[in-house]
This record gives sequence, C-alpha cells and structure tokens, in this order.
Amino acid sequence: MREVYLVGAGQSDFGAFPEESYRTLFQTAFEAAIGSVPRGLEPEAIDEAVIGTLGVGGRQLGLSGPAVTEHVGLHGVPCTRVENACAASGFAVRNAVQAVRSGMADVVLAGGFEVMSDTSADATKYWLGVSGETEWERLSGTTFSGTYAQMASVHMERYGTTREQLSKVAVKNHANGAANPHAQLGFECSLEDAESAPVVADPLTLYHCCPTSDGAACALIVSEDVVAEYTDDPIRIAGVGAGSDRVGLFQRADFASIPASERAAEGAYEMAGIAPRDVDFAEVHDCFSIAELLAYEDLGFCDRGDAGELIDDGTTTLEGDLPVNTSGGLKSKGHPIGATGAGQVVEAFKQLSGTAGDRQVEGARRGLTHNVGGSGGAAVVHVFERQPLEEVGA
Amino acid sequence: MREVYLVGAGQSDFGAFPEESYRTLFQTAFEAAIGSVPRGLEPEAIDEAVIGTLGVGGRQLGLSGPAVTEHVGLHGVPCTRVENACAASGFAVRNAVQAVRSGMADVVLAGGFEVMSDTSADATKYWLGVSGETEWERLSGTTFSGTYAQMASVHMERYGTTREQLSKVAVKNHANGAANPHAQLGFECSLEDAESAPVVADPLTLYHCCPTSDGAACALIVSEDVVAEYTDDPIRIAGVGAGSDRVGLFQRADFASIPASERAAEGAYEMAGIAPRDVDFAEVHDCFSIAELLAYEDLGFCDRGDAGELIDDGTTTLEGDLPVNTSGGLKSKGHPIGATGAGQVVEAFKQLSGTAGDRQVEGARRGLTHNVGGSGGAAVVHVFERQPLEEVGA
Repeated sequence: MREVYLVGAGQSDFGAFPEESYRTLFQTAFEAAIGSVPRGLEPEAIDEAVIGTLGVGGRQLGLSGPAVTEHVGLHGVPCTRVENACAASGFAVRNAVQAVRSGMADVVLAGGFEVMSDTSADATKYWLGVSGETEWERLSGTTFSGTYAQMASVHMERYGTTREQLSKVAVKNHANGAANPHAQLGFECSLEDAESAPVVADPLTLYHCCPTSDGAACALIVSEDVVAEYTDDPIRIAGVGAGSDRVGLFQRADFASIPASERAAEGAYEMAGIAPRDVDFAEVHDCFSIAELLAYEDLGFCDRGDAGELIDDGTTTLEGDLPVNTSGGLKSKGHPIGATGAGQVVEAFKQLSGTAGDRQVEGARRGLTHNVGGSGGAAVVHVFERQPLEEVGA
Repeated sequence: MREVYLVGAGQSDFGAFPEESYRTLFQTAFEAAIGSVPRGLEPEAIDEAVIGTLGVGGRQLGLSGPAVTEHVGLHGVPCTRVENACAASGFAVRNAVQAVRSGMADVVLAGGFEVMSDTSADATKYWLGVSGETEWERLSGTTFSGTYAQMASVHMERYGTTREQLSKVAVKNHANGAANPHAQLGFECSLEDAESAPVVADPLTLYHCCPTSDGAACALIVSEDVVAEYTDDPIRIAGVGAGSDRVGLFQRADFASIPASERAAEGAYEMAGIAPRDVDFAEVHDCFSIAELLAYEDLGFCDRGDAGELIDDGTTTLEGDLPVNTSGGLKSKGHPIGATGAGQVVEAFKQLSGTAGDRQVEGARRGLTHNVGGSGGAAVVHVFERQPLEEVGA
C-alpha cells in the first residue's frame, strides 16, 4: 500500500471575526497551507478535497464542502464534506489518507472550518448541545460543559484527581498559546486565575473550558509517488486510527475514560509500529481540562488514574519529556469545531518542519494528534514522523 | 490495488413515516442489507461505516453517523458521516470503496438516511433550498424546482426538447415504480396526468418533480480478500468517479448540462474500462424530469441535445436497450436525500443478483448509478458488474 505524506498545513487565526465569512476564513487557511509547502504546490495539482465542518453557522447547510473549495478555485475537483462533530476535520484527514492509499488520488486537500460567533445563523443556537445525544441529553438540557463535568467528577472521586490539576492544564496551555500568533486566547493565566474563575459546571471553572471560535485550517496530503516534488524533508503519516462509541455519555459503562480514543490510539500505534511514549509531542483534544487528563490515559501516556501526576510533574509542559498542546490546545488556541482536527495537524506540521517559533519542541521527530467528536462518540488519532527523503518508497 | 465488491444492499420503504425515527428507518435498511448477503454476513465482521445524510430532520445535527450505527449495534466501529447534499450516500459508497482499496478495511457499511416529513424539526424548513447556493440563491427565494426549471427552459429552447418528453420520463418511472414495493409513489401515471398536473415552476408540473421522503438504505462493500466468504456470485465495483462544480447554478457557464456529472462519468468509465452504452441499465438522479434527460447526455447515453429522442424512442424503458430508473427513480420511488445514493445501489444489487422481480432487466450484467448533489455542485457515478468467482483476484 502506498505511503502517505503531509507536505503543508496552515490556518487562519482562531477567534471571533464578524467581518469574515466561512469562505474567506477557509481561503486564508488554504493560502497558508499552500504557502507552507517547502518546494511549492500549484492548486491545479490537487485532485481531491475532504472538508470537515459541523455547519453550525456557515449558512450553507448542504454542499458546505464544495462551497468552500469552489471559493478557492477548486470547482471541478471531487470534494466530500465529512462531519463527526468536533472531530470533523480529524476524520477529513483520515479520509484523505484513505484516498491516497486507495490509489484514487495523489494530492489531497484536507481541511475544515466553523463559524460560531454568528448567532444570527439559524443553526448556531444548537451548538452547545448538538454533538451530544439529542433526544435524551440535549433536549433534557444537558450541555457539553455538564457532560465533561460529570466525567471530571468521576475521575476526581475515583483517582483523587484535583481541581488544581485541572487548572494546571489550563495554565500550561495558555502559556503555550501565548507563543502562538493564531491563538484566540493568546495570553498567560495563573493558577489563581483558573482556580478563582466562575464555575461553569462544577467542578469546571471558566478556565477549564475552551472558547467558541471562528476559524479554518487546511493540510496537504500526498502519495509517496509525488512527495519529492514538494519537499526535501518528508513528514510521513505513519499511523491512522479511529473509533466510535455510544453518542450519549449516559449510555456508556464508565465516565472516566473515552473508549473511542483508546481504540483510535491502538489503531494508530499499531499501524505506525510504535508505543505511546515514542512520540515527541502531542496535540490532544482539550475541549475541557478534564479531557486532556483523560487523553493522557486513553492515549497511554500514563497508567489509568495517573494523569494528575503527569500534569503535576511537568512532563507535558513545553520543556518536559512529552510536551502536549504546544499550540495552546483548544483551550487557548480556540475551538472552531470543524477546523480543530486540521488545526492540530497544522501544529504537527510546524513542529516537524521546525517552524514553531518560540514554542518549538527541540529535535521533534514524531508527533501525534488526537481529535474527539462530542463527548467521545467518535475519535481519531494520527501519528506523523519525519522521514529522510532517500527512505521514501524504500 | 485491491478490487472491491458489493455483497449486499437493502432499504426501508420510502415515504412519510411519522411513527418512525431516523434510527428505526436505518435499522430496517441495515437488516435488509444484512439479510441480502447470499452466504450471510455477521455484523461483527463490519470494520468501518460511512453514513450519508443532509440532516434536515434527523434531530441529531452532530455525530449523525455514529448515532445510527450505534443503534444497530456497531458502536466501536469507526464511522464517518458524509454530506454532499442529495449525493451524500453516493459519496458514502465512494468513501467505502476508498477505505477498502486503502487496505484499512475489509468489510464496510455504506448507507444513508433522511427524515423530511417531520416539519417540527428545526432544520426541516431549510430543505427546499439548502442545497442550492445559500447567500445568493436561497436567500433570494430560489427553490430547487425553480433551479431545475431554468435548466429545462434552456434545454427546450436550445434543443427543441418538449414538455411532453419531460412527461414521458415521469410516465416511465412511475411504471417502473409501480413494480417496486418500496416505492413512495408506486402507482402508474398517464401522459395526460403528467401534462395536466399543476405547474410547480414553469415548465415543470407536479409530475415532473420528485416527492420529499423519509427513508434509509444500506450497502455492504468488501475486499477481494474476503468476498468469497459472502457470495458465490460477486458484483465488482468496477468504476468510481466523482466531480464537483460551482454550488450556485448562476455561477456556471451553461445551464443545459451538469459538468460535475460529466466528470464523474468520465472517471467511472475510465476506471472500469468501458464506454457509456456498455451498461445494461442505469439508475440516474431524476429529482426533476429534466434531470434525467440531462443525465442521458452527461453520462454519454446519447449525444448532446438528443435526450428527447432517447425518451421518445423507448430506449430507456424497462423493455428498451438501456433501461433507466428501473426502481422508479427519485420520481416514483422517492427521494429521502441522504438515502438516495445508497438506494440506487440497492437497485443495482437487485438487478445484478437477479432479485428485481417484475422489474428485472433480463441478463443484466453491468449497471451504473448516478447521484447528484444540489443542482450539480457535486456528482458521483459508480459502475457495477458481475464477475465469476474464479476471476476474483486473478
């Protein structure tokens, strides 16, 4: 089967941009991705596109993939929209990998977008609850912060995880985001800020919750047959894994883990032939601080119940052994739903091409991205690694 | 690259079913697909799912793929929702083909669903215009019947196509649908019925327009490595093609063809190594009668401008040389948006497995399905052909 490579990635700023449309945001991300390809890439080379969006405020309910690709001049190119809630563009990247491996495409654009600040859009009102189970969760008033608060409560009760440990996640991610010019909340916060912030859903305070965001992100994914045209320093997509689960949290056997993440990670590690701690950095889905701690365990970065220790001992800071969310994560960088998964890939690209600036992980050779839909109804994990050009196709 | 096979397909009835949910409709289709596999298939064998829906009335805006696959016991299995308006599940089938060819899956469920009769669902109000371009078409009041009426007007003006020819499409498809127990409008209509019906958007009368529908459809798609476990009479997915275009009709150079369909057909024919008239039957996207005539030309069944003659001379009737829409098509069978593409594959499966009953095309060996999103913002074409088991992997 053909090997698959990441040759470029870029994003718009994440934030609230009432003067922009979903199409202009996407164009910004597309141009950034094109501009990041080391040896250049003409848009005419793109022979397939996969676009992730939940569609909460894009105004284009149908054909919302082609609606953005036409805007950047790709009408004619086969384009498929995918939606797996907050994991939409993580799955778009996975579909792009399948398209290349299938032999049906050589150069694929995988991207995503969301506009969440436009509360005049008829669908925006759904956003808080849409990706939970609708009939029994959303219509009974459950919000996402409520869902993750339940997960946090169980984790704290069972493993002794503390609110301070949740706050440390926020402090770390804000510190990283302060070095990311695209971040929506690109400022540092103190432990006291996080601890003393208003409670959104007990035990989660405001600083334990990511913002809502507008934004777009794109990645360019190619086959081994053409990768040398685009770069001298290939980044191989070594592993891809995915899983799904009951959409409603209330239908799962346990609240203190996300089995879809475990399945996705297992698949990605197996395909890449690596163990969890073989990665040099990771972008994980920290929609709420508890989600990052669950990810440490679900992805195998530590044993079950030990996530609190991992944040305490500094392992996951930028200077630690396994930096997590160097971009700022969803917490500080922002979370424009359909753009988030592709946005994580943007950070992986920057780290592995040595262009991450003040938040560069020294000597980064292998990175992981982890994107979750809803409260765990779907999850996808990718492993990226630098590969010498002479080893391509070898 | 691995060859890909269709080993089963099934659907719910299409119609208005207020007593059903999108989940129960999907379950009916899933069970019908499982039950259609000649040598049986255990759901546990399914290692991936791709689900198409526009989501107009499903109530589950996010994770609407996993929401139906969990209902049939497939939680855990990676599931991706795709949406390309009315071509959603045609593209789901294409993604399933890519998943199998990529080596990442051996048995894939590709399906789709839609609930359009539930006008209490907040999103249903969008349906008439959603899949056209929103900012300039829908918000200015353009409906889909209006869009296709413009196409019909240009075709009539340029090529002398008549309203009677549009009506003949309806008469043919209702005749076929009357033999399909799953059809929503499973009754015959006369040329006079079609001609004298109220005008919806000049020149289109009520009988030139498909209904809105609830329904679901599923297909089971496997690799050459496992096909012999499931059937003695394999149906190979020989060709897959896709194209996209400007979402808004007003931005296209010409109204009398659908370039995305032409591109999709070219791709599918090239992959299958066949010419247009090598197919024994076709299911084409007749959301409006003019769309079937455009398809004759876009798919190369006749020269540009000659579609009227093709319907006049009876070529596309059940008894003709190239029967089209033996299922009744969208016109008579119904058009539950996300289920339509997979529903076409159900008909291809029935015809190629000799189980189409009173509408069986004698000696059918090769068939085509053609699914269009919106007014042509996306299109996908598949070619299916029977292949002796001893030739699999040969």
